[in-house]
Amino acid sequence: MAPRAGIVVTGTEVLTGRVTDRNGPWLAEQLRAAGIDVAQVVVVGDRPDDLRDALRFCVESGVALVLTSGGLGPTADDLTAEVVAGFQGRTMSVDTDLDREIAGIVERISRNRGWQMDPEATAAATRKQATVPDGAAVLAPVGTAPGLVVPATGDGPPVVVLPGPPRELQGMWPAVLADPTVRAAVQARSELRQATIRLWGPPESELSASLRRHDGEFDGLEITTCLRSGELEVVSRYAPEAQPAQDRLGAALAADFGDQLFSPDGASIDEIVAAALLDGGLTIATAESCTAGLLAGRLTDLAGSSAYVLGGLVTYSDEAKTELAGVPAELVERLGAVSAEVAVAMAEGARRRLGTDVGVGITGVAGPGGGTPEKPVGLVHLCVSGPNGRLAREIHVPGSRADVRQRTVVVALHMIRTLLTR
Amino acid sequence: MAPRAGIVVTGTEVLTGRVTDRNGPWLAEQLRAAGIDVAQVVVVGDRPDDLRDALRFCVESGVALVLTSGGLGPTADDLTAEVVAGFQGRTMSVDTDLDREIAGIVERISRNRGWQMDPEATAAATRKQATVPDGAAVLAPVGTAPGLVVPATGDGPPVVVLPGPPRELQGMWPAVLADPTVRAAVQARSELRQATIRLWGPPESELSASLRRHDGEFDGLEITTCLRSGELEVVSRYAPEAQPAQDRLGAALAADFGDQLFSPDGASIDEIVAAALLDGGLTIATAESCTAGLLAGRLTDLAGSSAYVLGGLVTYSDEAKTELAGVPAELVERLGAVSAEVAVAMAEGARRRLGTDVGVGITGVAGPGGGTPEKPVGLVHLCVSGPNGRLAREIHVPGSRADVRQRTVVVALHMIRTLLTR
Repeated sequence: MAPRAGIVVTGTEVLTGRVTDRNGPWLAEQLRAAGIDVAQVVVVGDRPDDLRDALRFCVESGVALVLTSGGLGPTADDLTAEVVAGFQGRTMSVDTDLDREIAGIVERISRNRGWQMDPEATAAATRKQATVPDGAAVLAPVGTAPGLVVPATGDGPPVVVLPGPPRELQGMWPAVLADPTVRAAVQARSELRQATIRLWGPPESELSASLRRHDGEFDGLEITTCLRSGELEVVSRYAPEAQPAQDRLGAALAADFGDQLFSPDGASIDEIVAAALLDGGLTIATAESCTAGLLAGRLTDLAGSSAYVLGGLVTYSDEAKTELAGVPAELVERLGAVSAEVAVAMAEGARRRLGTDVGVGITGVAGPGGGTPEKPVGLVHLCVSGPNGRLAREIHVPGSRADVRQRTVVVALHMIRTLLTR
Repeated sequence: MAPRAGIVVTGTEVLTGRVTDRNGPWLAEQLRAAGIDVAQVVVVGDRPDDLRDALRFCVESGVALVLTSGGLGPTADDLTAEVVAGFQGRTMSVDTDLDREIAGIVERISRNRGWQMDPEATAAATRKQATVPDGAAVLAPVGTAPGLVVPATGDGPPVVVLPGPPRELQGMWPAVLADPTVRAAVQARSELRQATIRLWGPPESELSASLRRHDGEFDGLEITTCLRSGELEVVSRYAPEAQPAQDRLGAALAADFGDQLFSPDGASIDEIVAAALLDGGLTIATAESCTAGLLAGRLTDLAGSSAYVLGGLVTYSDEAKTELAGVPAELVERLGAVSAEVAVAMAEGARRRLGTDVGVGITGVAGPGGGTPEKPVGLVHLCVSGPNGRLAREIHVPGSRADVRQRTVVVALHMIRTLLTR
């Protein structure tokens, strides 16, 4: 079994749900790549007792390494370095080199931004961030907060203390992996592989039935399945020796699900659509009503998307549909803006207006208002038009306004893939 | 002090970072509204030992209630009900009414979607989901999984077992609050208030200096500050008796930061922009290059946005800028697509094309490629044009492609607010 690490995320803003934690997931992924499994992610508020309890919980679960994020800022509620020092029975002192370094960084930032800073308050804030547990190695700040590697004490593992802002934490990661204490804790670990297979279409129960039918063929794989935005993800984690079992899993799912297995290698639907457009030398444009730019935004999430995305139309009002996308006003009047015919006209309008090979039209009722018995909230018409012809679908999405809009974007991406690869 | 609850989120997909946990934050917010503080959110994978350890950690921290999410599905890695039963020393048995109810739900779903189900596999999956700890109250399924309220045993608090899909968990929440066991655990609790004040502009160190200057005036408030997408959030949690202290905090920040305090009552920038457009009877349109629809998508996140968003242009290519937004080709050629002048022309083009009162133009280098010494990655030009005139800004955003795009959207929203409220 791989060595395990515990992650403690601090911050009342994360605990109370005002901010989504991005550090736990990111650290878990980096640790896996380094051959370290994660035992638990614990989120606690900015309260010393709760942070201490969380550290103790991780240590008692037998992890080889604990990582914390957050609580290294200049404000009074930033307490992590102090609590970790106390937990390990270490005193704290000011690192004068670090104090100078942080002061220089703060001065540069405030000069760049034209901030007028109170010198006394600034010096106090800098001093706080430069006060570190004795015996800890300091990781150079990416923002203003340094990271810390606090060595093992007695029965406890080393604790790596990292700043909360994801950009700073991520920027510091190479220094964490290069630190001798961390290297000793994770040395000579064998790689832990992770593979993902994605399906679009079958219900989760059919997948679970398929896995049960092949019971015993996949020894050595830790398989988890997850339904996400309508896609089924089958993720395996395994030691390199179990690669043949993973290959058997891929073959079994391909045999059972055929075309519904759209990603044998973990590629996301975004990547698959991008590759299909690039491979075909095709360009794409969108005309969106209820999703209002979210599909265009998603198609351009990937770097290099300007090679195939030329642009899009957000036709939220009826006038925008007719004026921008060239949907006949008569069509909107006769059938309503949310209709299969208008979706087709929008897709063709996007192609024509932007001069692209592929056009996508989306019109629906995102809710919560605006539904009628004939056209309830959640009804969306989609059309994808390309050199190979057209694909049209009517879907009914349950859930909130955000659910309807997000799910519709995923359905659109799968329709683009289907049209381009058939 | 308010009673506290512990939240245990299960799922290897969440622990390993493939899926963002939405349940911990959502439950924390609901619990707060019910006067219950959250002590910790623990994320563990689909491993019985880890789930047991997490339950024990919560119980030992002295919480009055434990809530779990996830692990109630039909697949073999869904183990929560079984582990909670074992943790409390309860046996499990099939609830035959529930078995029938779930079978009916599954039948309806598969009929609606035209799925061909293997009857034996379906019956086994249903039976698994209908097997519950003895003594537990069953909460009616929203999807196919029931929720459970497992009463206190000996020294442990009650455990509320909820499904992982956010839509199902959220749909079940009213039944959780109505359950007698839950009501007894949280009864007669006084309200715990939360108030948020938002600033745009000052550095975090100035905020912390301001709070230090007023030290002692805010007793009874648990204040946390957080920098998010460039906005500073000041959140207080307090018992109703401390309302005067919260009022003093609001007055002190208003005095210290003036116009930079844009939200005294916690309203989001999205809500403030929506209110300014509605109050002024104004309509808006966008022309986006690097954000490619994300601003239009965000402006339409709120229900009722069709009253003021007419549409938008995603002008990703140079041709789209000239053809759709009417940016003079000569301008693009002479100054480049990423220039202050092109941002102005895009804002005016959006206004003109959509016939709106307000237009927004955004053009920048989102990266990671495409940067030059003169126009580096992170450079974005924005312009907002409206009846009161124009506002233009050049910003330099650090970080990833996603950071640049997201931050740009927030800056645009604040520029719209500034223009409309000045």
